[in-house]
Amino acid sequence: MDAAEFRRRGKEMVDYVADYLENIEKRQVYPDVEPGYLRSLIPEEAPEEAESYEDVVKDIERVIMPGVTHWHSPYFYAYFPTAHSFPAMLADMLCGAIGCIGFSWAASPACTELETVMLDWLGKMLKLPEDFLAGTEGRGGGVIQGTASEATLIAFLAARSKIVKLIQADHPDRSETDIISKLVAYSSDQAHSSVERAGLIGGVRMKKMPTDSKFSVRGAALQKVLEEDRAAGLIPFFFCATLGTTPSCAFDCITELGPICNAEQIWMHIDAAYAGSAFICPEFRPLLNGVEFADSFNFNPHKWLLVNFDCSAMWVKKRSDIIGAFKMEPLYLKHDHQESGNQSHWQIPLGGRFRSLKMWFVFRMYGLKGLQAYIRKHVGLAKEFESLVRADQRFEISADVVLGLVCFRLKGSNELNETLLKRINRARKIHLVPCQLAGKFVLRFAVCARTTESRHVQEAWSHISHLASESIVTNQSSDLI
Amino acid sequence: MDAAEFRRRGKEMVDYVADYLENIEKRQVYPDVEPGYLRSLIPEEAPEEAESYEDVVKDIERVIMPGVTHWHSPYFYAYFPTAHSFPAMLADMLCGAIGCIGFSWAASPACTELETVMLDWLGKMLKLPEDFLAGTEGRGGGVIQGTASEATLIAFLAARSKIVKLIQADHPDRSETDIISKLVAYSSDQAHSSVERAGLIGGVRMKKMPTDSKFSVRGAALQKVLEEDRAAGLIPFFFCATLGTTPSCAFDCITELGPICNAEQIWMHIDAAYAGSAFICPEFRPLLNGVEFADSFNFNPHKWLLVNFDCSAMWVKKRSDIIGAFKMEPLYLKHDHQESGNQSHWQIPLGGRFRSLKMWFVFRMYGLKGLQAYIRKHVGLAKEFESLVRADQRFEISADVVLGLVCFRLKGSNELNETLLKRINRARKIHLVPCQLAGKFVLRFAVCARTTESRHVQEAWSHISHLASESIVTNQSSDLI
Repeated sequence: MDAAEFRRRGKEMVDYVADYLENIEKRQVYPDVEPGYLRSLIPEEAPEEAESYEDVVKDIERVIMPGVTHWHSPYFYAYFPTAHSFPAMLADMLCGAIGCIGFSWAASPACTELETVMLDWLGKMLKLPEDFLAGTEGRGGGVIQGTASEATLIAFLAARSKIVKLIQADHPDRSETDIISKLVAYSSDQAHSSVERAGLIGGVRMKKMPTDSKFSVRGAALQKVLEEDRAAGLIPFFFCATLGTTPSCAFDCITELGPICNAEQIWMHIDAAYAGSAFICPEFRPLLNGVEFADSFNFNPHKWLLVNFDCSAMWVKKRSDIIGAFKMEPLYLKHDHQESGNQSHWQIPLGGRFRSLKMWFVFRMYGLKGLQAYIRKHVGLAKEFESLVRADQRFEISADVVLGLVCFRLKGSNELNETLLKRINRARKIHLVPCQLAGKFVLRFAVCARTTESRHVQEAWSHISHLASESIVTNQSSDLI
Repeated sequence: MDAAEFRRRGKEMVDYVADYLENIEKRQVYPDVEPGYLRSLIPEEAPEEAESYEDVVKDIERVIMPGVTHWHSPYFYAYFPTAHSFPAMLADMLCGAIGCIGFSWAASPACTELETVMLDWLGKMLKLPEDFLAGTEGRGGGVIQGTASEATLIAFLAARSKIVKLIQADHPDRSETDIISKLVAYSSDQAHSSVERAGLIGGVRMKKMPTDSKFSVRGAALQKVLEEDRAAGLIPFFFCATLGTTPSCAFDCITELGPICNAEQIWMHIDAAYAGSAFICPEFRPLLNGVEFADSFNFNPHKWLLVNFDCSAMWVKKRSDIIGAFKMEPLYLKHDHQESGNQSHWQIPLGGRFRSLKMWFVFRMYGLKGLQAYIRKHVGLAKEFESLVRADQRFEISADVVLGLVCFRLKGSNELNETLLKRINRARKIHLVPCQLAGKFVLRFAVCARTTESRHVQEAWSHISHLASESIVTNQSSDLI
């Protein structure tokens, strides 16, 4: 395919994409296919000879679309949102064309520099403390990671490296493996699985802290376990706080936890993967109070800030902590402007796409006000759904509705709620996933698509309400047997 | 921006991209900017109000392009190629539109399934042993990672987890930290920095093996160190072989190393990040002989197989080894078809883009023959450059030219060669990076861009040759002082 054909096919693809998105609600949100459906639809091997573009394109509807879960359908309420906007898609086209690999300043100065500046822009939108910004002379700064999982892992590893050096400074005879065998890290029992995995990867024990009735870790709980662990000869070094947990969007109490971590020389990382986007609104910014105690902070603009996946924003107060943990400089990566930002020292992969272009396009084309309006609209829709649930005596709300997630269930057994969820997902009209809260099976209703409107929420609720009646009847009749 | 405006702007962007690529050779391959250039060109904060698309687009040439290193210019010969093709860009547009996150089968069946089948297609193109393919009943299979660094890390962690379980099965009293403190992993002294970093992350000692005169690790060297390490009470468990090292594209001798690893129960991972793409050509496939001894194998279609970044292909013989090391299943990720492929168990991030679409488009629109022709063309251009170097008595070739990389230098001091490289990169006509081979400062000429032709190589050589004369003169006059 040459540039001339690309001009033609690219424009056709733009139309296909626009058509897909304009008509997405007509597609069934969750597919009917069974596992293994795709293999039988395509050849067993790649073709020897080139095929025509027409051949490829017609297979999109035949092979791909029947197996797509439509994350951007306004009937999709599962997991958390994944961001999606036209400006981000345009920026991604440009990113693909430039096709540079941003692992050092020299490999593409624009890529390195725009990333640093966009993270400053975003940090200012969130009103992050000055310490976290790079500016021209700051010691902190931000970087784009692929996912929050990677950000957590990087923070964890930097903290591990820092504590080992700190202890070895006083006890040069203590080996790294000996120190590591005594380390202990903490997170909420509501934290994302990636936090536990970071411990697994780093070969360090990770303890899950109990949460209060709001699913929030409190200072007293941390204080207690720290005393026990220090008494047992362990070395606490890392606490991963969550703002907006995956099950219920709960918030760890960082104003209590932060001072304890600071006093005890424990690295506090904040994972606000979903909720972080909301902090650009003054009314939600108090949820971030306490961030001043953190060593690192992360959230995913690719979840709820209209910047297509992948774009996870991570800030640290001291760049040197991260760089010190990872720096490796083979000759083929050295260049004249060595200290001007080598993203490879900040992340697991050596290089990355020119992802900051997406942020730049989105921030400018929406403006801060446009982004705030978008967040508020989603929160409003969640509140609307909450009211519908609360008005129905058969249901209960299972956790405070703070942002765009509603956790709810039928009053009654877990089995009853499992039945309801099965009916919902089998009907294929909307798509939800469950969670477990204090032993209870709970349904999660997350406002996800950019195009979700009140009418979709109302429709979803009347559908759920109808299936609930059926579930109750079924459940009662099975009770009679 | 609504769908109607996206139709218009998307088509404009398609034209911008086509224009950029059609005229890329007219742009200076390496930018003139100084570190910090970009910050002063744009505001210090994101705008409050939305800006127009025109405002954003006109800043591409004003702000971005002056700081871009043009990786797809035919005058770019630095690092290794990063793949770039029109079909991959079209597929990426579709990927952005669907915007699903592929972390489980249910999250998007098409995404999970196409990935598995594309890795089988690609495995067959490489004639990988059957063990590495998923098929419908295989125990092996492939997955797309972001980069080779991540693939190495995953293999390393899976091997660590496996050896710990193995030892604990016989000695249930031995703690994980005790075992880890005795582990030792190996790679070539020519291996990529990410291999050393995997050891750092995993908290395990990593030894660099000496290489022979061809920069290749041989069986005898491994055998020797294994005996020493076992005698010292260490537990060897992982060897990362490199096929196509970053400095000189050297090949570890896996036909010797593989049987030793198998006999000693050492996980052999093969990192063929760059060279792997060439193995689709029968004449280069012998370089992969010995892969049958490996536990895992990885290369980057996003380097040299026309699939835009990121797309690193990784295969394992036993999926269960990887999944066992990482499996975590919170309720919100459970679904009815639990065993149908959860990519989250195979990688560091929880989710990923629908990256297999790029492979599908590229493999079909080029066909195997088209891809082979592309590889052969690049190798031919490297051989052409090699002949030019060899015909000039002032120069020497520093390593066998096997694929698309030529390592060369002026006969003489490292200073002389450093001077030459500085002149080359300051002239900005072409872009190269150096490496160090056996203490010598060496220039690397990697054929990178898809559109590089013989005339570009000839032009690059006459430019280098001219600057070499100047460097020699300068060097001689400074010797006289």
